[in-house]
Amino acid sequence: MITIGRIAQMREVSKRAREEGKLIALVPTMGFFHEGHLSLIRKANEVGDLVVVSSFVNPSQFGPGEDYENYPRDPERDRRLAQENGTDILFSPSVEEMYPQGHSTWVEVEGLTEVLCGKSRPGHFRGVTTVVAKLFLIVQPHYAIFGQKDYQQAQVIKRMVEDLNFDLKILVEPIVREPDGLAMSSRNLYLTPAQRREATILYRSLLRAKELVEGGERDAERVSALIKGMIAPLPSAKIDYVSVVDGENLRPLSKLTGKVLIALAVKIGRARLIDNILISVDE
Amino acid sequence: MITIGRIAQMREVSKRAREEGKLIALVPTMGFFHEGHLSLIRKANEVGDLVVVSSFVNPSQFGPGEDYENYPRDPERDRRLAQENGTDILFSPSVEEMYPQGHSTWVEVEGLTEVLCGKSRPGHFRGVTTVVAKLFLIVQPHYAIFGQKDYQQAQVIKRMVEDLNFDLKILVEPIVREPDGLAMSSRNLYLTPAQRREATILYRSLLRAKELVEGGERDAERVSALIKGMIAPLPSAKIDYVSVVDGENLRPLSKLTGKVLIALAVKIGRARLIDNILISVDE
Repeated sequence: MITIGRIAQMREVSKRAREEGKLIALVPTMGFFHEGHLSLIRKANEVGDLVVVSSFVNPSQFGPGEDYENYPRDPERDRRLAQENGTDILFSPSVEEMYPQGHSTWVEVEGLTEVLCGKSRPGHFRGVTTVVAKLFLIVQPHYAIFGQKDYQQAQVIKRMVEDLNFDLKILVEPIVREPDGLAMSSRNLYLTPAQRREATILYRSLLRAKELVEGGERDAERVSALIKGMIAPLPSAKIDYVSVVDGENLRPLSKLTGKVLIALAVKIGRARLIDNILISVDE
Repeated sequence: MITIGRIAQMREVSKRAREEGKLIALVPTMGFFHEGHLSLIRKANEVGDLVVVSSFVNPSQFGPGEDYENYPRDPERDRRLAQENGTDILFSPSVEEMYPQGHSTWVEVEGLTEVLCGKSRPGHFRGVTTVVAKLFLIVQPHYAIFGQKDYQQAQVIKRMVEDLNFDLKILVEPIVREPDGLAMSSRNLYLTPAQRREATILYRSLLRAKELVEGGERDAERVSALIKGMIAPLPSAKIDYVSVVDGENLRPLSKLTGKVLIALAVKIGRARLIDNILISVDE
């Protein structure tokens, strides 16, 4: 594995790989790897000949008062895990390398970014799409692999790829969970032991909602009420949203039909956690 | 010369050319070619092995009430002129091909777009940068060639290329003028014979301003007053702006120094005309 910090060098390596006919698979991350990231790296190994993992805590996707400064970092451990899981290139540029003085260009997806996390984190997705566009242009991947935990992010990036005519394929991999069901996240680190126990309700509430739907419930209001009813009583929890939306365009549904996404964001102590579940609902 | 209307086909042709080690030079245009466009196509022939000219009247860079519907078009003549001047591929996609239903991604450069034409045409540069980003991603050029008449546009696109890490070089070619000095523009067609005569003042006023500066004048206010004083008396002219700005960051100057751009936009009858001159001012 080679670690690269410079855009120019990353570009050269990708150019050479393409000239040799290799398929490049990119896993964009903010580092502090957990099993979720590693599953994406392993997927990259299945589809690509050159596996590039980018590790960059992107300041432009954090709002004021969010956790950019305190976002967990462990580059040493990341290097080891990346290598053990088949990374060829670990691309970890500095903030100055990615956003040199004078940077003033932004990529923005409208519509899809105005709901769910976009509503509570204004500017967040603009930061995501901008940095991902940059990474795509630097790394020139054939495949880019994202996790389903950030379902909205994956939809937004697919939209960007289609609209701007990027010539690559987005793959979305399933959520990896702790044994008790909590979705893996770098931010789980922020939880106290008591909050960590409370946090298991998030996924359990999604599973209960799924059962409800499988039992015939089609009313979105009642489905989200069930989830809110389970989470609200937790002492440390503050619900940001619980939403039942169309799995493609992310528009709110009143009646469940087709590909349905149930998504939630809940602040537990210092950690803002997200989770979701996709359900295919027959008419 | 081949004419291509489909993105997928254009992409294939570019991919093949790159695999063969050819250098691709792109000239993005809105068609209705005049000598200005043809000079860009000839430049493309100097630097590239495969010359791609795109012809697309981009609706997203026209504001409400602007001349999108009436923008002059002559595809038959364009095809002939493109071919005669060494075009290999004329890429002329439809609006539906470039902006299919659901398109909602925009590329925006801040700062540079908030002055000069950006001030009077809100959203204009967002349309330009979005369509140019798309063209760059589709055509994958090594060089893209723009005219200096749209000086601000060229600066904005250079900024985008740098910020988003496009791997290509922007070339800016000199303004091509009619024998009487009027900058060539598809919109000159809108002028009545009387307005056409009046329009020659634009360049003459820029030349007079240049003389003034060469004679030692360093006060931006006095330079722009000279120009305004020459244009304002014209019966059909309505000044949008006359600005003396830094040639790199386009910020207004009070004292002329370094690379100075004097730029103007004037409505003459139905035509909104722009022109500019670059002056290198010693301290």
